[in-house]
This record gives sequence, structure tokens and C-alpha cells, in this order.
Amino acid sequence: MESFGARLHRAVAERGPLCVGIDPHPGLLARWGLDDDVHGLERFADTVVEALGDRVAVVKPQSAFFERFGSRGVAVLESTIRQLRLAGSLVLLDVKRGDIGSTVAAYASAYLEPSSPLHVDAVTVSPYLGVGALAPMFDMAAAKGGGVFVLALTSNPEGAAVQRARTAGGRTVAQVVIDEISQLNAGAQPLGSVGLVVGATIGETGHDLAAVNGPLLAPGLGAQGASAADLRVVFGSALPAVLPAYSREVLAAGPDVAALRAAADRVLADCRAALTGS
Amino acid sequence: MESFGARLHRAVAERGPLCVGIDPHPGLLARWGLDDDVHGLERFADTVVEALGDRVAVVKPQSAFFERFGSRGVAVLESTIRQLRLAGSLVLLDVKRGDIGSTVAAYASAYLEPSSPLHVDAVTVSPYLGVGALAPMFDMAAAKGGGVFVLALTSNPEGAAVQRARTAGGRTVAQVVIDEISQLNAGAQPLGSVGLVVGATIGETGHDLAAVNGPLLAPGLGAQGASAADLRVVFGSALPAVLPAYSREVLAAGPDVAALRAAADRVLADCRAALTGS
Repeated sequence: MESFGARLHRAVAERGPLCVGIDPHPGLLARWGLDDDVHGLERFADTVVEALGDRVAVVKPQSAFFERFGSRGVAVLESTIRQLRLAGSLVLLDVKRGDIGSTVAAYASAYLEPSSPLHVDAVTVSPYLGVGALAPMFDMAAAKGGGVFVLALTSNPEGAAVQRARTAGGRTVAQVVIDEISQLNAGAQPLGSVGLVVGATIGETGHDLAAVNGPLLAPGLGAQGASAADLRVVFGSALPAVLPAYSREVLAAGPDVAALRAAADRVLADCRAALTGS
Repeated sequence: MESFGARLHRAVAERGPLCVGIDPHPGLLARWGLDDDVHGLERFADTVVEALGDRVAVVKPQSAFFERFGSRGVAVLESTIRQLRLAGSLVLLDVKRGDIGSTVAAYASAYLEPSSPLHVDAVTVSPYLGVGALAPMFDMAAAKGGGVFVLALTSNPEGAAVQRARTAGGRTVAQVVIDEISQLNAGAQPLGSVGLVVGATIGETGHDLAAVNGPLLAPGLGAQGASAADLRVVFGSALPAVLPAYSREVLAAGPDVAALRAAADRVLADCRAALTGS
């Protein structure tokens, strides 16, 4: 069975390093001329799948916008996941789950167990209960070829209060996350299957992200204020592992399918230029 | 409109200070003679509702165990929530959501907006992205009579690495959470609507939890190792605001309805003794 790290490496080689979110905010639904209900949600998600499922390496639905409509919204999410996988995209579900170990095991079963109706290629997780509590998620990912992206340094300004706090040994919380994930990925070829979330808005991190040997998801681009050029500052020598994540910047071009594709092509070109320095 | 804090205060006065979880682990389903599928889940949840919905102040379904079965599991969760509210329990949904503000707003709409199919009385949230990022959740709770429980000091051993880390000003991450929530609840009568999660397993905290003026959810009792007597050590003068949370200790008594009720009565008696010192 191919690991998530290997599958992601191949997808990026084939389609380029880009992750596009599916974040149907009420304001975006309105902008697309859709009602703020489960039918609007379905139309929105189907349109993104049609436009980008066959060309973007990773598509990242944000679970919150599906949960807003309860079980019917989650049924749309299931359908969206299936369609994206059929179209050849990897699906990174943005759920930011985190809990004690026995509950994390249930979340792992929900999202990384192939028999689950919500089975995706990878999920985001939150380490507020400690990276160690996420072990059942890492174990399931390793066993089933899935991926996990752990929040390290997030793109929002309020995050620093927690993530820059220092543990008893003097390391920051983010550094502890980086170190523990680096250990998990040690020796993996061509890329580990446990990644980090590091916001593109945060500037020089002071951390060695190249040691992670896993994918580095970089949200905060576009609407949140960072540009592709900021990636060099934040990631330095870790740039080859960066997966830039765009949502509103691309989604605002919809609902026209050709316009969505053009927007994705444009940000991909920006990212290629920034990542290669060309 | 009555605030969550006022509603909780009344429920505890009427039914006693107890929160019972609905945590259908695969092992518990097997123990109850149920299949590990959506029908087993439904039977499990319905039985807990029948046994406890009319007598326990707060029932706390754990979302992970419903998400395991995708949209059909979430439909069972919707039904469970509706039945619990009809039976007179407050519903605290254990979802531990946390994200950037615009996404937290979507989670607030999913769980605290009365028109949502997943509308509950209160939710748990995670502050890894900073307490400030949770503002849309607090705003929605205040506007709609809902409650929010923020993770502060969790019951698992791995949590200390993050929660005991010190911010630039010298406070721990947990103390920052405590201080910010104390401000939100300042002046609320008889009890604020924003609570904390503080594990009963953690021993003397070194924090003044009485200042919070909001409910203090105490998991970690029973199967996780803490006893009702530990509550005095952890909470000190904040004991009157404690809502002890039991899951496996009670649930293991099922599926017999009378046995579930007896188990809940027993842990409630333990807690009353510990909380009043009698």
C-alpha cells in the first residue's frame, strides 16, 4: 500500500503544488447566487469538484460549512469526497479534530478507515491535548495509507499566545510539535505522511521546518493577507515541501467553471514562481 | 431569553450536578450486545436517552462516535439531541471545535443557532488557535442563550506539554484561558455561560478557578482514574461550579435501563458527598 506521503509527492509532481479549499461561507453562497441552504451547499461543492477535481493536487473541504446543515450537509460532504477521489484529487478534510486518545481513535476511524463513508486521504488535527494524544490518528494513517496535518503555527493573529508559549524545557509549543512530527517522519521516502499546518502570514518562524520531512500546508494566502512571495520568508529551505492552500482567492471567481479554473491556474503560477524562485 | 448559565444553574438545582456522556466506543457496543454499526449506535443512544434523559442535568454526546458512521451517524445524533431536549436534559455536545474566526462562526451556526438540525445547549471548544479566535462562538452563545466550554486543563497526561507552557508574560496557557473566560463571565448572575473543561485527574492546579464565574466541566472521573474525592483537591473553593462528567463508569452498567439509572444515581451521590463535604 502506497503511503500518503508518496501519493502526495506524486500528485504534486503531476498537478503542481496547490491545495484549494471548499469553504462555502454564507457570503460566498450569496455571491454565487445560491441560497444559504443544503441545496446551495451541494451546488457550490459540485461546481468546485467539476472545475478543479481533475486538475488540482489536493482539494480541502472545510467540515464546518457542511456541519452547518447537519446530517444532510454531511451527506453532501460524503458525495463531494467521493467525486473528488474519482476525479483524481487527493482530499484533505479540514476538521481540526483533537481529543483524548480513545476519542481520537474514533475520529481516526471516521476519517482514515477506508470503510467509513467519510474516508479521506488526510485530515487536519489539533494538538491542544498534546501531540501524544493524537497517536491513534498517526497509527491509523500509517496502517491505511492516510495523512495527518497537525496544527503548528496557525495563520491567525490570536494563535501566537498558545503556539509561542514555552514549555518547561524552553522550547515553544510549536517547536515541540515540529520535533515530535519530525521524529514520526524520520527516514520516510520521498516524504513522510504526517504534515504540519504553518500559516503563510506568520513571517520568519525561527524554526527549522526542513527537518520535518513531511508536507507543510500553508494557509493564509490570498484573502487572509499573505502572498506567494511570503512563502520564501516563512519556509526558507523547507520550500520544496510546501503545499500552498488557497480558498476565497480562488472560490470568489465562481460559479463559472472556466473562471474557477483560471483562478486556480493563476495562483498555481504565482506559487510555482515563489517556490522555485523563478 | 434565559442564558445558558441560568438554565444550567436551574437544571443542577433540580436534578443535581451530574453530566453523563454518550460515548459509544466499539468495546461498549460489544459489551451491550450491539453491532458496531449505525443501528447499534442508534440503539445505544436511544437507551441512554430513555434511562437518563428525564433525570440527569446534562447529557454529553461525544460527536466522534457518531461521525464514525458518517451522515447516517450524524442523523442519529440529531435524533438523540431532539429526544434529550424533549426529556428535559440540557445537551452539551462534545465536539472540541476550534479554528480561525470565520470558520468558528460556521461551527457556531452549526451548533448554537436554534434553526440548525444540530442545535444543542452548549458545545466544547479548543483554544489552540487562541481564545480570541473563538469570539464568534461566544457571541453566538450570548445572542442565542447557548453555552461554550473551553478546554483549559485536560484530563490526559499528554496535555500538560501545551497547557502548562508559559506565555511571554509568564502566565501558563491554561491561566490565559482562565483569565480570558473570567472576563467574559464577569458580573453574570447566577452563573456565566462560558465554562471551562478542567480534568479531575490533574491534582492541585495552582490556578484560581473560583474567579471564572462559569461552569467547570470535570471529565476524567471513573474509567480515567479520578474519584469524586479528587474534585476537592482540583477545584477547591470553585467546587460549587463543578459539573462532574462520567461516561464509561455509568455506560458500562447498560444496556439495562434500571441498571443505567442506578449507576447514575450512585455517581451522583458520590459527587454530592464530595462537593458538599458531607
